[in-house]
Amino acid sequence: MTVTRDDARFDEINQLRLSIDNFDSAMIHILAERFRITKAVGHLKAEKDLPPSSPDREKEQAERWRALAAEAGLDPGFAEKLLNFIVSEVIENHKKIRK
Amino acid sequence: MTVTRDDARFDEINQLRLSIDNFDSAMIHILAERFRITKAVGHLKAEKDLPPSSPDREKEQAERWRALAAEAGLDPGFAEKLLNFIVSEVIENHKKIRK
Repeated sequence: MTVTRDDARFDEINQLRLSIDNFDSAMIHILAERFRITKAVGHLKAEKDLPPSSPDREKEQAERWRALAAEAGLDPGFAEKLLNFIVSEVIENHKKIRK
Repeated sequence: MTVTRDDARFDEINQLRLSIDNFDSAMIHILAERFRITKAVGHLKAEKDLPPSSPDREKEQAERWRALAAEAGLDPGFAEKLLNFIVSEVIENHKKIRK
């Protein structure tokens, strides 16, 4: 069923979906800004001839994400997998900047 | 190198990393709330005997994520892959609720 803001058949699931959509908009915009920042990091790394990946930093991030997730009631294992997914994309972008 | 808020060796990359960390905290907390909502959706679906996956809804979400990403300057292909990653986890959680 198509869920739209003016759908007369609103039920509980559709109401929740509107909240999900609002949170998704917020997440996408934060993520867009995060990638703008990692792009700047990629240029600085290329200028300073630093490698695209920073294992120490990534290990710290994983610990930080797991701790924040646990505190917020999000599965820490899932949070870490998600971080790895994002970081892999960031590293690929860093490699492209170096070329 | 360990990046801490009181590190005397702050350089440009570390400054940017502090911004990344702040955005990550925001994202993790939004995501935790999103999973609280999808958990409620999972319970409603189980009560109403609706399937864990909703292909029409997921198709709409993919289009919505791609459009929002494009507008925000985020790679739409990456945004869609990330959505699929999150939705896969949500569907697995829905399946567990039904059991």
